Amino acid sequence: MTSTRPSGRSANALRDVRITRGFTRHAEGSVLVEFGDTRVLCTASVEESVPPFLRGKGEGWVTAEYGMLPRSTHTRSAREAAKGKQSGRTQEIQRLIGRSLRAVVDLKALGERQITLDCDVLQADGGTRTAAITGACVALHEALDKLVAAGKLPANPMRERVAAVSVGIVDGQPVLDLDYAEDSNCDTDMNVVMTASGGIVEVQGTAEGAPFSRAELDALLALAERGIGELVEAQGRALAA
Amino acid sequence: MTSTRPSGRSANALRDVRITRGFTRHAEGSVLVEFGDTRVLCTASVEESVPPFLRGKGEGWVTAEYGMLPRSTHTRSAREAAKGKQSGRTQEIQRLIGRSLRAVVDLKALGERQITLDCDVLQADGGTRTAAITGACVALHEALDKLVAAGKLPANPMRERVAAVSVGIVDGQPVLDLDYAEDSNCDTDMNVVMTASGGIVEVQGTAEGAPFSRAELDALLALAERGIGELVEAQGRALAA
Amino acid sequence: MTSTRPSGRSANALRDVRITRGFTRHAEGSVLVEFGDTRVLCTASVEESVPPFLRGKGEGWVTAEYGMLPRSTHTRSAREAAKGKQSGRTQEIQRLIGRSLRAVVDLKALGERQITLDCDVLQADGGTRTAAITGACVALHEALDKLVAAGKLPANPMRERVAAVSVGIVDGQPVLDLDYAEDSNCDTDMNVVMTASGGIVEVQGTAEGAPFSRAELDALLALAERGIGELVEAQGRALAA
Amino acid sequence: MTSTRPSGRSANALRDVRITRGFTRHAEGSVLVEFGDTRVLCTASVEESVPPFLRGKGEGWVTAEYGMLPRSTHTRSAREAAKGKQSGRTQEIQRLIGRSLRAVVDLKALGERQITLDCDVLQADGGTRTAAITGACVALHEALDKLVAAGKLPANPMRERVAAVSVGIVDGQPVLDLDYAEDSNCDTDMNVVMTASGGIVEVQGTAEGAPFSRAELDALLALAERGIGELVEAQGRALAA
Amino acid sequence: MTSTRPSGRSANALRDVRITRGFTRHAEGSVLVEFGDTRVLCTASVEESVPPFLRGKGEGWVTAEYGMLPRSTHTRSAREAAKGKQSGRTQEIQRLIGRSLRAVVDLKALGERQITLDCDVLQADGGTRTAAITGACVALHEALDKLVAAGKLPANPMRERVAAVSVGIVDGQPVLDLDYAEDSNCDTDMNVVMTASGGIVEVQGTAEGAPFSRAELDALLALAERGIGELVEAQGRALAA
Amino acid sequence: MTSTRPSGRSANALRDVRITRGFTRHAEGSVLVEFGDTRVLCTASVEESVPPFLRGKGEGWVTAEYGMLPRSTHTRSAREAAKGKQSGRTQEIQRLIGRSLRAVVDLKALGERQITLDCDVLQADGGTRTAAITGACVALHEALDKLVAAGKLPANPMRERVAAVSVGIVDGQPVLDLDYAEDSNCDTDMNVVMTASGGIVEVQGTAEGAPFSRAELDALLALAERGIGELVEAQGRALAA
Repeated sequence: MTSTRPSGRSANALRDVRITRGFTRHAEGSVLVEFGDTRVLCTASVEESVPPFLRGKGEGWVTAEYGMLPRSTHTRSAREAAKGKQSGRTQEIQRLIGRSLRAVVDLKALGERQITLDCDVLQADGGTRTAAITGACVALHEALDKLVAAGKLPANPMRERVAAVSVGIVDGQPVLDLDYAEDSNCDTDMNVVMTASGGIVEVQGTAEGAPFSRAELDALLALAERGIGELVEAQGRALAA
Repeated sequence: MTSTRPSGRSANALRDVRITRGFTRHAEGSVLVEFGDTRVLCTASVEESVPPFLRGKGEGWVTAEYGMLPRSTHTRSAREAAKGKQSGRTQEIQRLIGRSLRAVVDLKALGERQITLDCDVLQADGGTRTAAITGACVALHEALDKLVAAGKLPANPMRERVAAVSVGIVDGQPVLDLDYAEDSNCDTDMNVVMTASGGIVEVQGTAEGAPFSRAELDALLALAERGIGELVEAQGRALAA
Repeated sequence: MTSTRPSGRSANALRDVRITRGFTRHAEGSVLVEFGDTRVLCTASVEESVPPFLRGKGEGWVTAEYGMLPRSTHTRSAREAAKGKQSGRTQEIQRLIGRSLRAVVDLKALGERQITLDCDVLQADGGTRTAAITGACVALHEALDKLVAAGKLPANPMRERVAAVSVGIVDGQPVLDLDYAEDSNCDTDMNVVMTASGGIVEVQGTAEGAPFSRAELDALLALAERGIGELVEAQGRALAA
Repeated sequence: MTSTRPSGRSANALRDVRITRGFTRHAEGSVLVEFGDTRVLCTASVEESVPPFLRGKGEGWVTAEYGMLPRSTHTRSAREAAKGKQSGRTQEIQRLIGRSLRAVVDLKALGERQITLDCDVLQADGGTRTAAITGACVALHEALDKLVAAGKLPANPMRERVAAVSVGIVDGQPVLDLDYAEDSNCDTDMNVVMTASGGIVEVQGTAEGAPFSRAELDALLALAERGIGELVEAQGRALAA
Repeated sequence: MTSTRPSGRSANALRDVRITRGFTRHAEGSVLVEFGDTRVLCTASVEESVPPFLRGKGEGWVTAEYGMLPRSTHTRSAREAAKGKQSGRTQEIQRLIGRSLRAVVDLKALGERQITLDCDVLQADGGTRTAAITGACVALHEALDKLVAAGKLPANPMRERVAAVSVGIVDGQPVLDLDYAEDSNCDTDMNVVMTASGGIVEVQGTAEGAPFSRAELDALLALAERGIGELVEAQGRALAA
Repeated sequence: MTSTRPSGRSANALRDVRITRGFTRHAEGSVLVEFGDTRVLCTASVEESVPPFLRGKGEGWVTAEYGMLPRSTHTRSAREAAKGKQSGRTQEIQRLIGRSLRAVVDLKALGERQITLDCDVLQADGGTRTAAITGACVALHEALDKLVAAGKLPANPMRERVAAVSVGIVDGQPVLDLDYAEDSNCDTDMNVVMTASGGIVEVQGTAEGAPFSRAELDALLALAERGIGELVEAQGRALAA
């Protein structure tokens, strides 16, 4: 079948994925992740204390913050620091990133420390939250490796890797890894977060226009599973490099 | 099989659902919805203007706000108005309610007016967001009926009803309509929003502990479909009353 | 003399007063108070600690917060949590409720604990602050009774009950317990808070239009005294139930 | 009877009152008012437009803002601009000042302009709100006189002057114009706002400790009436100077 | 050369400088400083503790806050406390005042206490930040003298006095101590902070229109040095009084 | 003389300077500027309208915003968007960048449009504000070139380039372009902004420890002039590429 996607990709093709470790030098983990023209800088910062609700419980915490540079987008968006508050969308995304990563880390094994993943979008072309999860997982792995190397942890407490991808129905066709042109024009949009072994961590599907059917949901999940398999491989290559 | 649910319900049973119209008298639509001990007051307010981004486009808008009374919960939560900001959770929920309702309303047919659904939790026992969507749909229907009765609209622009329910895996068992005791103890939590005709509007599934499998996802969706069918019937009875 | 009040009430008549205990189930005290169509939910929450300025002094504290649901009013008011701050009116009212209740509680006998009264207006038709004080007194009494029953206090530290009512001059006539139609149209508006034994706790009189005379002030105080007597009886019946 | 007041004043004596016009030079009205050691700078600023809710109605508006310099008090108070919000007390006071002044101005005669009274406490020793009302009335009069002089108004739209004083019960004795030592130690505190002709604009009485009786209320009102008579004369002298 | 300055001053002349100690009575140091029509109230408040970042280090801290009364200016400016935030300009100025004073105080000798200088502009006519630094130095000296007198410090830890003045190029001519008429019309504006012994603490020069040359910079610095010499003398006279 | 600088640079040597155009693709101008390990992304966004205070005046505006990614620094700094406000330091820097750029642009020739320069620090190692000015000038030039190319402007309204560098006294020695190790350890820190033709736009010198002398100021200005000459050349090469 001939692709009708703006990018010429076939329905089940990811964009070019690049995961660059060590993009900045101060953070314990620092990764630039690119899904095509979407570029997100993910840094992991280790702090030897936990938030008040966990103190004295012998467990660690993994959390995330998300932001977009004002001109990462086609037209300039107001700077959230200048507006004095984070939008509902920003808060939704950073809560999603944090939950996704906590799902694959043994927090008891991490001990009483907190790791914060900052995911800052340098350039946006759709799929920033899925790229952020995928890149943050690598940055977090890097930071945990350093704790092991420093003798602070006996073994890396990440049980397996986690990655995320968007899928959607565009012009009636289920497609994988939507770019901005598709994202702003789709009927249904779904973000799926899965582990390397195929466990589902999050599914968030939204009908933008008409409701979708159970059959469409199934087709989207199949596409997502395939895409996440490739992303987990890319993560593995980046960590092995 | 014998139920192991704290409430003694069978796995596929909703709590007692009560939908009371006209609970307060100023709003164009006013509904008290109860899912067992969860009680949410949903009011619909009609305004003859639209937000700036829609002005002059000949379309209407439906939006929602959500809040919990400070002592709707087991222990008192700080009042968001006193803290000076709404939590990320509150914003996520009110965005979800708004999207769910817009999915079933013909906004062009609504004309240049906005309807705001205020969903305020008087008492919380799990499932406040799904109760809110289910009740707000009735309050919105009521308000739209009044616009028709007043000659402002030729017909009610709600295409079909929408309702929501939570499903989850508790102690390894998929169950429908979790109460607080189950919600705070489940492995996987999913909120499903569907229309009367079975179209899916939103699926939000989250692994609280271990990731979940595709088979578990399928079982949860089947439970949700059944529950939403009953909720849509309850909505119908309330509107017919 | 024939009444000219919109409601047909005589000048010295209260609206129907209903005080319903146990309206919600989580709070230590929970009361729905109704002055005619004005309905306020008052909950009392006990916390076993005091604010910083009282720590270590062996005294307790009673405080209040007040809010109106956005569509408790004739036209929708913006949600204070969404605006990010409480209005001056809200702050005035919650300070008044707190002061009124502290005037009848022996804070030393309460010990180092704080009780917060949340007064949330479900439906407004004038006199929300006076209804709130009257209902909150009952919710507070309920919570204190539970502390006695639990053996945490030897006796209820509320010295006597306190209630409040509005009085005003409408079309030249002093009247008791103004509803919204009167309140928005009066020349002078006064809120009076008194104890069961007739002690004055607060008097707040405001000329909305022309200043008022000393004789008018005296007439209003007499009306208030009568109304508060009836309210204190209603509180007693509710507590005895 | 021998005075027991810390200042040696008799029970019905005001502190030394000084009203200095033209204290600063940019404002249309600028008055330093002193009640003993309490010093408040009151400026009136005229703006040739009204707030949105009054546009096109042919009426003016008078409003007030209140602030305390951080070290106007015995110990330094945090700067409200630095904290990012005005306290409930500040808002209560500025609403009171605005209402008190509007009660004596013919807003229709003022025309579509707004006058803002800024009342900033340079030094506090009790009674800052009553000094502010008394001084702001003179600053407002000055500003209105300038509008007349400039031919923008045919006559001064202030119907009569308004002044305010505090009264209270200290050690069982009703006294006039409490200073800080008395204010922080009184049983009952009342602020009274009256016009030159003796009309009551506001009465705000609060039992700080035990409730007060009707007889005490009467005694306090008599003291206040006497004090306000003297303040209105002082205003007259300042305006005649 | 004939002066062309609006005030008739020669290019190297300060405005009349008045430094009045003891302007208010609660603060440990209280100074009204006047540079012509610019009037700033500077108070010093001593607190026997330090901010968290200094705790346990055996050093003190000196900090400053700055504000303008709303009608200190030609047209009324919005009150920062009402807007809920301090402007960038306010923050710049208060940071500058704090740095300037810390440069002349031996913070170790001060011990673990903090002194806050509140600089509030009662009337503005240009040069408020330089007047504030000059006056705050005297208020700080006064407060430190009191600590010595109280036996809390063996000697005054201020090493030498510090003062500030503005210089600028107006109509091509370098001039000293710009008033508002000059300030709003100058090409280059420079604020210089120097110690009594001629050490430079801060230089902040800004080209408002065309860039300025090195020769102009030198001329401005010479003017500033002369002006600061006179200001330091005025400070000395005030402290000796 | 042997260098004692941590980096081994001679006293008058800049760090490696790299200016990369087109770093991101949506903005009208997009530049990554690097001063050694300091990396700042500068984007220019053109908007065809001006802020309210300039409407209808036939002039344009150039403004800037500044931010640091949370982990651009050695230890993580709190995200300003999460804290809900920009620090005083951030506001000072963005005001400085804006003023510096406006000094070299003919705002009348720009016409009624605004250009916003967003300067976001990806990695910080001292001198972020001077790198930001230097890079933002190139991004602004790029955006203005595009307006010329699009026929919206007859010629580029930037009169000449502007660049900035820090100088300071470290261990008694005047040095150029301080990195973080020097910056956190210097006695005097000065930022200088100059045009290509040597005009001074801003000089901001601060004594961090002891005051500095006029001779030291002169030495620092000479170093800065040399450094800015090299930076202007680097800008030229980037724009010619």
